[in-house]
Amino acid sequence: MKEIKQIKIKKGMKINELIKEFKETGVGAKKLGEAADVLELMIKDKKCKKFLGIAGVLVPAGFKEIIMDLLEHINVLVITGANLTHDLINELGGKHYQGDENVDDKELNEKGLDRIYNVFLDNKSYIKLEEFFEKNFDKLKEAKNIREFLWKLGEISPKNTILRRCYEKKIPVFCPAIADSGIGLMIWGQLVKNKKINIDAFDDLREIINISWGSKKNGVIYINGGVPKNYIQQALQFSKGADYGLQITLAKIEDGGSSGAELKEGISWGKLNKNAKFVDLRCDSTIALPLIIAALKDRI
Amino acid sequence: MKEIKQIKIKKGMKINELIKEFKETGVGAKKLGEAADVLELMIKDKKCKKFLGIAGVLVPAGFKEIIMDLLEHINVLVITGANLTHDLINELGGKHYQGDENVDDKELNEKGLDRIYNVFLDNKSYIKLEEFFEKNFDKLKEAKNIREFLWKLGEISPKNTILRRCYEKKIPVFCPAIADSGIGLMIWGQLVKNKKINIDAFDDLREIINISWGSKKNGVIYINGGVPKNYIQQALQFSKGADYGLQITLAKIEDGGSSGAELKEGISWGKLNKNAKFVDLRCDSTIALPLIIAALKDRI
Amino acid sequence: MKEIKQIKIKKGMKINELIKEFKETGVGAKKLGEAADVLELMIKDKKCKKFLGIAGVLVPAGFKEIIMDLLEHINVLVITGANLTHDLINELGGKHYQGDENVDDKELNEKGLDRIYNVFLDNKSYIKLEEFFEKNFDKLKEAKNIREFLWKLGEISPKNTILRRCYEKKIPVFCPAIADSGIGLMIWGQLVKNKKINIDAFDDLREIINISWGSKKNGVIYINGGVPKNYIQQALQFSKGADYGLQITLAKIEDGGSSGAELKEGISWGKLNKNAKFVDLRCDSTIALPLIIAALKDRI
Amino acid sequence: MKEIKQIKIKKGMKINELIKEFKETGVGAKKLGEAADVLELMIKDKKCKKFLGIAGVLVPAGFKEIIMDLLEHINVLVITGANLTHDLINELGGKHYQGDENVDDKELNEKGLDRIYNVFLDNKSYIKLEEFFEKNFDKLKEAKNIREFLWKLGEISPKNTILRRCYEKKIPVFCPAIADSGIGLMIWGQLVKNKKINIDAFDDLREIINISWGSKKNGVIYINGGVPKNYIQQALQFSKGADYGLQITLAKIEDGGSSGAELKEGISWGKLNKNAKFVDLRCDSTIALPLIIAALKDRI
Repeated sequence: MKEIKQIKIKKGMKINELIKEFKETGVGAKKLGEAADVLELMIKDKKCKKFLGIAGVLVPAGFKEIIMDLLEHINVLVITGANLTHDLINELGGKHYQGDENVDDKELNEKGLDRIYNVFLDNKSYIKLEEFFEKNFDKLKEAKNIREFLWKLGEISPKNTILRRCYEKKIPVFCPAIADSGIGLMIWGQLVKNKKINIDAFDDLREIINISWGSKKNGVIYINGGVPKNYIQQALQFSKGADYGLQITLAKIEDGGSSGAELKEGISWGKLNKNAKFVDLRCDSTIALPLIIAALKDRI
Repeated sequence: MKEIKQIKIKKGMKINELIKEFKETGVGAKKLGEAADVLELMIKDKKCKKFLGIAGVLVPAGFKEIIMDLLEHINVLVITGANLTHDLINELGGKHYQGDENVDDKELNEKGLDRIYNVFLDNKSYIKLEEFFEKNFDKLKEAKNIREFLWKLGEISPKNTILRRCYEKKIPVFCPAIADSGIGLMIWGQLVKNKKINIDAFDDLREIINISWGSKKNGVIYINGGVPKNYIQQALQFSKGADYGLQITLAKIEDGGSSGAELKEGISWGKLNKNAKFVDLRCDSTIALPLIIAALKDRI
Repeated sequence: MKEIKQIKIKKGMKINELIKEFKETGVGAKKLGEAADVLELMIKDKKCKKFLGIAGVLVPAGFKEIIMDLLEHINVLVITGANLTHDLINELGGKHYQGDENVDDKELNEKGLDRIYNVFLDNKSYIKLEEFFEKNFDKLKEAKNIREFLWKLGEISPKNTILRRCYEKKIPVFCPAIADSGIGLMIWGQLVKNKKINIDAFDDLREIINISWGSKKNGVIYINGGVPKNYIQQALQFSKGADYGLQITLAKIEDGGSSGAELKEGISWGKLNKNAKFVDLRCDSTIALPLIIAALKDRI
Repeated sequence: MKEIKQIKIKKGMKINELIKEFKETGVGAKKLGEAADVLELMIKDKKCKKFLGIAGVLVPAGFKEIIMDLLEHINVLVITGANLTHDLINELGGKHYQGDENVDDKELNEKGLDRIYNVFLDNKSYIKLEEFFEKNFDKLKEAKNIREFLWKLGEISPKNTILRRCYEKKIPVFCPAIADSGIGLMIWGQLVKNKKINIDAFDDLREIINISWGSKKNGVIYINGGVPKNYIQQALQFSKGADYGLQITLAKIEDGGSSGAELKEGISWGKLNKNAKFVDLRCDSTIALPLIIAALKDRI
């Protein structure tokens, strides 16, 4: 057993220094320290395929570059349509503002501002998104499944989008609930004009399961649960189980839902290897993830 | 202003009596009392289309009949594939057991038990599910979108399933992330045998938006957030906003995610009408929802 | 292993019927069902001394009679000064109102209303409390420790107060942080008029430890953590550990604090017997506790 | 309105740099950025009396030096007895170890290890604590109230304890529930040997209220709610309300309890000034507080 260290904060302290100190402490800080270590191990293991699942509001809240940083290291991205939509909105010139969650939502509605907790989206941002999909619909309709659709979309998206980056780096992007997002609404906007597109809902499964199945080792990173976490878990069920795992979420264990479920629960299903190295960090991802990425930048 | 009542519990008290008393109190109990009232108003308003969104573990945890009860009153169901899968598993003879969440997951794995918090699923349950999809695949492949697929599946499902009930009552069922579920895996199991199916991922959007758009009034019930909540919210954006709202969840407000977002946030987006009657109840749905249903059975 | 039962809600269902059904399910509902059973066992065990710890807002929220019900069965009460103060305020004619937590606190301040989440306290209620302590101070100052002080206070309190009931039933009441409450402020109001009182801060410890030490069996009920929970835990450390335990709280496990700590953690300390029967229920106490009390009224 | 900035993590990034960037984002990270600013403003305001309230497990988890850092800037400390006890234990040679919360508590009990979430305390640590109180009891018994008792205890405590530091810097320390702690048990250990001590439970109130009342401006820092938060809130009620406020906690708003109550609720009571600058940060204090302290070290 190792004694708890009473850590000292120093002037000019770097993030990586503090994260290393955290590993010597207890409660959540210790887990944050261990989380950086697990992610470092996972990334440095070249035999390991890394699956990144992103839900929540990282993009509208200002943390898109964190995802871009992770794209340098991961092999598969599963992400919510909302994050992809807000990313496109930003890069097409739409606006997200800092706001206050204790505001009168009726007033916001009159001002044309859509609230996401303490982030306000200018409703006019959707105009450029509509124009973009109107103009590019014909290219998108060649896609046959959601992963292809997202690569097509990436190919024509502005340079600094997540989807463009994935397309360029040939990182498969999955988004099973794509219809449940602004992108879905944009496609709907074309469908009601009698345009046609046929994107298969199930076909992607072959691809993601093939990746997990075919790799020697797998690693999983689940940010904020949701469909991305569950979809990766499901794909892992056919492997020997993930060898590395990192979860960051505020979802609760006790409602039994997949979003808050402990990583170790996955051992019973075979989604997590019984000898896996993993950390389950219950923290706001907008705080914890930038810290971990900063630590990794100094280590890798 | 109304004084807080110091309520008394009586011997032999009925649930509806207590829920009425709760309305005279404070904190969460008051909200539970109001929740029953809002649901009663919503259900009794014949001009109102009711959208029910179900995520979480109601079915594996033993609360499928609660959903069946709600199907008597609602017009649209949006539900996770997991709930539909566990329902099919049960009605095909699979088994869910009571368990303890503080168990060794490695031992469970060796015993072939999959853990969902304190519920254990017998892994062998999947065999019957596979046989069922193997046998019935040809009927399913006629479907063109997810809603059609789910009605086809309902048509051939055992009598007491949610999907069969929806099919019989002609309640549209939506499940945007259907691939992210056991049902998705069953279809994958057929795809790898080179069978073909083509279910469109976006097509359903027209139907759900048409319902919300075309109705005089709308009511929403969100149980445990997730894709079902967000998908209904999205459809409502094109209406005048919901006139009634009930949310029950343990998801947190402060991570900014859709699952935990306050109902009133929807006013800024136009998803909720500014004059709507609504209640935001932060409680375990396996506790709160049966209570509300019991109260309603005595009122309607 | 026992199969999960898919329970059915019946018209006119009694609370006890539902709570029994809950025991056959999963997730939180199952725990609520087990909680009623553990409390029933604890109460029926005549050799067992029962310690009840109450924090949170049961009294201002309208659930004082629930505490009165429990006083019929328990042997020791540890409670926050806030609950005692609000109880006195009510019985002296002060007023708590139903409110809305999404209100402008500045307006409330101008109206003389003090907010406790969605409960508003009329600030004028303190006037009667001050008169009461002004008039009765001489009787209180005879007390030597906090338990004596609270019995003295109970002796002169209005008939339907928790303290009066405890005094009449000779139930020892402990409140280590008594100075941290409206009652504390009332005493302070006398001290600044140069009146004298000398209540010992440590003396009670002998009494509560003697009770736990001297009894054959102990049972603990922790509602909302806080000092009451920790003070009972501490007293139990010198016994063989509690034989029955029930905890109801929304406090979180992962910050490591005593309020949210799992009951089973107490086994390591010897505060809980390793063979104890116990249930750890993560639920709003204003919802869960009335349900459990209703179930018990039908069983005992 | 200010646009959300998409922040970039740089190699070798300092904590203060990231915290400044956080202020340009949304959700919890933004609040963390603002929290550092509010604390900076509060500390730099020389007319302002600063009240620090500490509950939870900062000391056993390895964050005692963070408290020491804050003692350089604050005027009043209200703290739980548990933190003071674990600090004394450490400085007298007792041991806290890093552990795993998913451990068998029965095994820990047999090994003489007491679990605090993922921190294990060596039970033998109490021996030195007992010897210390046995040896020094006579000095302690001269104290008349809890604040005096804690200064006496500080005077004789090892050099690097919180209490010794407060004694040397003449920072008043309050701990209304002192009996509810290991220190309480140590005093009980003397009382059962028929030694005498008489520490008044209410007398401190005059002192803390005098400080808040007499100062031009007040600032409050609440870490993990509990009695420390409520006791400061109560003292502030007689001032014009705090001018600066910072709260860091994982306690929940919706149970209505004081620990999780929003700072702004205090405006209704007059505990917070309606023009106050304040931040309500819902985060694990073992993660958020070290970050804020690091930022401040670079700013002050």
